Amino acid sequence: MTALFEQGEHVLVGPGDDAAVLRVRTGHVVVSTDLLVEGAHFRRDWAEALDVGHRAAAQNLSDINAMGGRAHSLTIGLAAPGDLPVSWALDFARGFAAECALVGASVVGGDLARSDQVTVAVTVMGACVQAPVLRSGASPGEVVALVGRQGWAAGGLAVLGRGFRSPRVLVEAYRRPEPPYEAGAVAAQAGATSMIDVSDGLLADAGHLAADSGVAIDLRAGAFEIAEPLQAVGAALNVDPVQLVLGGGEDHSLLATFPDAGSVPEGWRVVGEVRDGGDQAGVVTVDGAAYDGPRGWTHF
Amino acid sequence: MTALFEQGEHVLVGPGDDAAVLRVRTGHVVVSTDLLVEGAHFRRDWAEALDVGHRAAAQNLSDINAMGGRAHSLTIGLAAPGDLPVSWALDFARGFAAECALVGASVVGGDLARSDQVTVAVTVMGACVQAPVLRSGASPGEVVALVGRQGWAAGGLAVLGRGFRSPRVLVEAYRRPEPPYEAGAVAAQAGATSMIDVSDGLLADAGHLAADSGVAIDLRAGAFEIAEPLQAVGAALNVDPVQLVLGGGEDHSLLATFPDAGSVPEGWRVVGEVRDGGDQAGVVTVDGAAYDGPRGWTHF
Repeated sequence: MTALFEQGEHVLVGPGDDAAVLRVRTGHVVVSTDLLVEGAHFRRDWAEALDVGHRAAAQNLSDINAMGGRAHSLTIGLAAPGDLPVSWALDFARGFAAECALVGASVVGGDLARSDQVTVAVTVMGACVQAPVLRSGASPGEVVALVGRQGWAAGGLAVLGRGFRSPRVLVEAYRRPEPPYEAGAVAAQAGATSMIDVSDGLLADAGHLAADSGVAIDLRAGAFEIAEPLQAVGAALNVDPVQLVLGGGEDHSLLATFPDAGSVPEGWRVVGEVRDGGDQAGVVTVDGAAYDGPRGWTHF
Repeated sequence: MTALFEQGEHVLVGPGDDAAVLRVRTGHVVVSTDLLVEGAHFRRDWAEALDVGHRAAAQNLSDINAMGGRAHSLTIGLAAPGDLPVSWALDFARGFAAECALVGASVVGGDLARSDQVTVAVTVMGACVQAPVLRSGASPGEVVALVGRQGWAAGGLAVLGRGFRSPRVLVEAYRRPEPPYEAGAVAAQAGATSMIDVSDGLLADAGHLAADSGVAIDLRAGAFEIAEPLQAVGAALNVDPVQLVLGGGEDHSLLATFPDAGSVPEGWRVVGEVRDGGDQAGVVTVDGAAYDGPRGWTHF
């Protein structure tokens, strides 16, 4: 299977030995790890192996993106039942490799094991060209901005959960997210003060950022782009599409804070502002009020 | 749980953000990943959580050892059933942290997920002070040497498999291996030409080394140390204890080749020689002949 994984020039020793060896010229490594478990994070009847491979890579690559970095290397552990079709594992590896190729990262090692449930464990390594952007740097008075699709995966999941297969573009967005891979480094260079990738849900992740920064965040419901497919699914399911945007995760959009609207890079959309935390640190409001819509449109 | 993990000075950003950030002064990173699955690699009724934590760390730290390196950072993914006792997870984390502390490595990140089976995914990062020692560097005429306990875990497993609990020292060796963590770097500096950690079984791993080097290896059955507990378990189970040594894995001893006996560091024991591969590359013999004893004393 390792033959599927092309090795970048920074890979001094690739897969097949006790360990891989990577050249690191930057003086640091940004590293993150994520699990993807069948039945909790994906269903084999809802997503092709190729898509699960893309998603497993994307959710990890996105963590480096959210630090303002670029990924260069990944390892992958695949635990699977003995009767898992070889074609599933190969398609998974192909999808994984294809997603990594989008950012020029190499799969440098892995492990296979037997288990009852397909479980994918990925570790990703990368580098920043400037100081990493943490969750903890937001200050009152700054603007909150978003880049990338948001709510699309949640829309696709809502569609699948009701037995439908369209709008197809949302189902595809759920199966295979398209994180804005260049946007993290661009934001870092533009002076983003804090950043997080949206994977648990926009409100939840805004809450993580606010809590770690000791601030409150107010989002403006009217500021979000409600793309046509989200409007369509909202109408079909009798759901306010803003709920999909606010509660949705798994698109791996980025949420960041900037000193002011003028420093927000192209492609980002200002969606709220940072407020003084006081005894409300970590609180996220929508249009100045507590949000009482559904928060959970993640996983399934 | 992250409060259990002390962070070394090289950790610029520890657990809790989208990714950790490590200072890397060496210009390279040695990286490996391993899975540990309940039912395949451990049983909760045969090993305490603390021991499983030690073992999960040890098997990964050993991979860096086998490159001639020293580990500095690890990430850990834990997928577990919802009814897993919190105390199990905490004890596991304590054991994992304690094992990492033996070599001064930090647990810098992790992920938790729900699954039916306890599955542990670990990635370890480290560095070498010299060129990494690969599996592929052995040449005919060199000597083969071993360091660390070998066969003890297999002995412990054989004991447990028959419903016994003693010799206790072997059961403990199975539950909590004690890899010779300093020996890899010492061997590299002494001029080891190839190296591997014994995890699949001594004969199997000697075969990996021989295959990757394009050589054959002949081991001398009489050269191995048969410690007293191995003799005892051999007598009790009516098994030649050399079988436990040759077939055993999971002690995470190191097997390496050196140019000659004079270059073998203290603590290592010469146990065989490298022979011309010819059309026999990858073949491992014992006392010049094919070995027909049991090869599998690994896992259970």
